[in-house]
Amino acid sequence: MKIVAAKKLLKANDRLAAENRKKLSAAGVVCVNIVGSPGAGKTTLLEALFAALGGRARPAVIEGDIAGAIDAERIERLGVPVVQINTDGACHLDAGMIAAALADLDLEAVDLLFIENVGNLVCTAGFDLGEQLRVVVLSTVEGDDKAVKYPAIFQGSDALVITKADLLRHTNFDPARITADYLRLAPDGRVFQVCATTGDGIPPVVQWLGGDRHET
Amino acid sequence: MKIVAAKKLLKANDRLAAENRKKLSAAGVVCVNIVGSPGAGKTTLLEALFAALGGRARPAVIEGDIAGAIDAERIERLGVPVVQINTDGACHLDAGMIAAALADLDLEAVDLLFIENVGNLVCTAGFDLGEQLRVVVLSTVEGDDKAVKYPAIFQGSDALVITKADLLRHTNFDPARITADYLRLAPDGRVFQVCATTGDGIPPVVQWLGGDRHET
Repeated sequence: MKIVAAKKLLKANDRLAAENRKKLSAAGVVCVNIVGSPGAGKTTLLEALFAALGGRARPAVIEGDIAGAIDAERIERLGVPVVQINTDGACHLDAGMIAAALADLDLEAVDLLFIENVGNLVCTAGFDLGEQLRVVVLSTVEGDDKAVKYPAIFQGSDALVITKADLLRHTNFDPARITADYLRLAPDGRVFQVCATTGDGIPPVVQWLGGDRHET
Repeated sequence: MKIVAAKKLLKANDRLAAENRKKLSAAGVVCVNIVGSPGAGKTTLLEALFAALGGRARPAVIEGDIAGAIDAERIERLGVPVVQINTDGACHLDAGMIAAALADLDLEAVDLLFIENVGNLVCTAGFDLGEQLRVVVLSTVEGDDKAVKYPAIFQGSDALVITKADLLRHTNFDPARITADYLRLAPDGRVFQVCATTGDGIPPVVQWLGGDRHET
């Protein structure tokens, strides 16, 4: 009974996700679902990407949080259109929430739509939002064993962005280990290493988001 | 319909949690549910606690992971009894899983039982496991805004252990801010700041776990 209900919910989610994808595609919007643990540096990464975009693409953000609007306020300060979703306890965004948020955005004025998911390496994996790209953000201080321990979120994702590269020398994080584990789960995935607070490593991410997704 | 099912499940969980609590109490075991994000340093904290216990109490561990046994192997190397639970995708432990794991432990030979929950600041909040103490582990590199953004897990917990204190000077983490936010959610909670890799700050945690839980 419980499993049937869960399957029905997921089916409904997939239908809504397909509608979102169609709507975004029709408006020429590239939509990126940003997932990662609490504190991985998702919002700081967005801030760095906006600084580096330099007007080459018009960004917007859908912020998913269980409570509060701290991240949305940070984005708003940069003059980027942002819609806040408060999940009221729910541990991930779903396609229905995104459909509601899309109605609040002028998609004709957006080229790159970032969805910052709830900080959660587990539950976010099960829900297609209608995005074109899924990017996993993992900080050097979280440990290099996370792809092995939380495989679903990495599996089939489009890129891994390793953040807080400036702290690497203070940790036992091995970028080669996580890269090898990641590429087993996402053979076509790209791996980036950045320090979002200084902007180091950000330009290749911007280039990739801009459509140059075929280099090795 | 969906809500009823969820309520029923939670009710069943609470019943099993009460049974676990009774069983643990009868055996004189203090059970500690350790929750936190992936990479907060839960396992490293356990390693430091075991080193500091120095035979004053006999520990055991129930390790919750979605996949793999990396953490259980780390604990086993220290000669501490450990039972691994693989949740096979589930985002938190529940009382039924703990009941099954308890059957694999000789509780008469245990004083302190640590349950290392799945790395998840969200879903773990809803499930009583039958523990006596719930400890939230948060690293300095995750940011000081987490109590505001993920209130449920902090609410009513017994202690906040701030880990990776050695990295504090490389971050903008403000211990005073998280402490104030935390104490609003858990007025009786204790706050510790530790560096588990060096052992700094560990002795007060051990003292508190040993029953000295009334100081300020």
